[in-house]
This record gives sequence, structure tokens and C-alpha cells, in this order.
Amino acid sequence: MIRHFSAEDLMDLDSFYRRNLVNCLSGYKSLNLIGTRNQSGRSNLAPFSQVFHIGAAPPLVGILFRPHTVKRDTLENILETKSFTLNHVTPAHYKEAHWTAASWEISEFEGTGLVEEDKGDFFAPFVKGSPVQLGCTLVETQTLQVNQTILLIGSIDHIYVEEKGLRMDGSLDLNILETVTVSGLDEYHVGEKLGRLAYPKPGILPVEI
Amino acid sequence: MIRHFSAEDLMDLDSFYRRNLVNCLSGYKSLNLIGTRNQSGRSNLAPFSQVFHIGAAPPLVGILFRPHTVKRDTLENILETKSFTLNHVTPAHYKEAHWTAASWEISEFEGTGLVEEDKGDFFAPFVKGSPVQLGCTLVETQTLQVNQTILLIGSIDHIYVEEKGLRMDGSLDLNILETVTVSGLDEYHVGEKLGRLAYPKPGILPVEI
Repeated sequence: MIRHFSAEDLMDLDSFYRRNLVNCLSGYKSLNLIGTRNQSGRSNLAPFSQVFHIGAAPPLVGILFRPHTVKRDTLENILETKSFTLNHVTPAHYKEAHWTAASWEISEFEGTGLVEEDKGDFFAPFVKGSPVQLGCTLVETQTLQVNQTILLIGSIDHIYVEEKGLRMDGSLDLNILETVTVSGLDEYHVGEKLGRLAYPKPGILPVEI
Repeated sequence: MIRHFSAEDLMDLDSFYRRNLVNCLSGYKSLNLIGTRNQSGRSNLAPFSQVFHIGAAPPLVGILFRPHTVKRDTLENILETKSFTLNHVTPAHYKEAHWTAASWEISEFEGTGLVEEDKGDFFAPFVKGSPVQLGCTLVETQTLQVNQTILLIGSIDHIYVEEKGLRMDGSLDLNILETVTVSGLDEYHVGEKLGRLAYPKPGILPVEI
């Protein structure tokens, strides 16, 4: 059975129901903890599901920041200091990752027990034990006219990855790294591989590689 | 063991290796087949991993189109006709979904055997059998200064979802719907649920709901 919602149906829905539904529509989302500091050095950590690939040469990453969020420490810290880290989440720490979204009066590291890791002179803190850690620097921001969402672009200046998940061709085995993915607002999953497929050509169904 | 790549290391890497690595860094990505038609009515279908939530009221979706791609039929069709569909992919059809990215001379529906589904007077074609199908209309586009990537925003005008995956609170059970997620350029997975977590509050580790 198929359920249909028109645009009018959607706007008539209870806002909680609509928010749950619309947040699930794109499918599985990436999950990263973003580490920052304010100018006084106080650390902050927050979960984000809207981090995506913007380019490989130079390596660039994009993050969407929704408008009207009461607390936007992460965005303010990045605009102030230009520095942030992205850290994959594993099953061992996905509850703590979710918990960083609470309204902490203290640093989210201190509150949740996730451990702050400094690397060299990089300003923003990394999450100790995360299998993929990226050190990034602000490049530009753009505001979407339609609803004031902010798109922030960063350069990827440092990549730290657990070698067990780094393949010969540069790709990462996210199953081995135990990277967690999120659906909707609050549901967490690991990936179960179906297959890796050959470069697609007309006339020949792609085979597994 | 942790492997470190600096920005300089990255630019010295073989471009194939760098492209594989950087495309994996954000983690798991959503996978949607985008259905369009040109003004003559010829259908087109292409896989996208960069579709994301922009807002729930009104319901908006964003798509990133990379620059310098030889063929951008999907983008051109949307700019011409304003109409597109998003369709989740299941394990039964993930090879055909990947295959739509080949350089077909004919419609990707005809080439891969995926079945075109028209709904009412909606202009763009849906993918028959997809458990989540969205009918969308172009709202605006913006070009990123940094590398000419185009961010396209669409309104979600119709949602068709298999009822077995629609929960009482509006959220979707992507495990039941068998939605596929992609990592890097060519690797496909289904999700395996870890848990759904309560709204986070300071002082209390979030419990499963």
C-alpha cells in the first residue's frame, strides 16, 4: 500500500509529524561530530548530519546550518576562529554523540565524557578514538535566499584515518571503520555492504569489484 | 595505526586515489535516482548522493551539482521544465541504479530496465516500485564561488511512501523500506539499526526509544 501526501496535506499535518517525515525523505545521512573552540579556547562539540563532498582538488567539504536554531555555537565559533574538525562516530559512542546536542552549560566534551584530542598546533579539538578525523579551515559562506539556511564551505587541511579502513585505491571501508549513519532526527545505523560496482557502461550490467 | 595526510600530501597524491579518498570522507551518503524529462518529453534517470534536507515547513530539498561534468542532462532538464522526482533505491535494483550513470544514447529507463511511472499530471517520471518517491519543483539555484558547484533547491510537492515503513510519528523506517546508502563513488550498503534515541538533555545519557 502506498500513502500519498500532497503539498497541502503536508502543511495540514501536525508540525512534529511533518518534521519527522520530511527529515527522513532524503534517506540515510552522514554523521559527523564537529569540534570547535571559541576565541577564549573553550571547546564545543555538536552532531551534524549535513556534511557533504564539495570537491576533491582542492579537497572541500560543505556544511548546512539551519536558521532559527536557538544555539549556534558551532557556526559562531567557525566564523570567529575559521577552524573546525569533523569526526566520524562509531557504535561505541553514538549515544554520547547524540547527547552532545543537549543544552550543556559546560563543554560537551566534559558533559558527555568524549575525549578532546589536540593535534600539533591545529586550533580546533578532535574527538579521540574517532576512526576518521578531519582538520578543516573556513573558506566561504553563502546564505540561501529561500529560508536563510547557511552553507559553509571548508578546506580539508588534515586527514587522520585508521589504516585498517584505508584501501589501496584510497577509498575507505566504512564497514571496517564502523562509521555510523543517521536517519531522520534521532535514529542511528551502521552500514551492511551490498557490493562495490564497476564503472558503468551502456549494454553491460555493472559487476561487483 | 593512524595514517595522516596533510593538505600538501593530498595534492601530491595520484588524482584517482585522492578522488576515492575525499569522496569517502563525509561518511555514508543518501542515494536517490532523479527522474526528469526534457521539453520534448524524453525521460532521463540519474543517481545522486548529494540530496539533503533544507527545511520542513515548507518542505524543501537541496541537490548539489558538481561543475565540469561532461553530461548534465538532469540539471538542464530541471532548469528547462522545473520538474523532477527523487526515488529511493532498494537492494533489488541498486545495480540498475548505478548503471543509469553510464553514457546512454537512449533513455536510462529503456537502457537499464527500470520502469517509468507517471502519476497524474506530474511532468517528471517516477521509478516504479521505489518505496519513497517525491515529486518536486525547482525553487532556486545558487552557484558556489569557490568551485562553481551549483546548489539547486526544490519544493517537495508530493510524497509517495510504502505504508509498511511509515511510523505513527511520521518518521520512516529505512530498514523496513530497504533504502540503500552509498559510500565513496561506487559502494552500496543497507542500514542496520543501532537504536533510536530520546531527546538529549544534560546529565542523563539518552536512552533508546
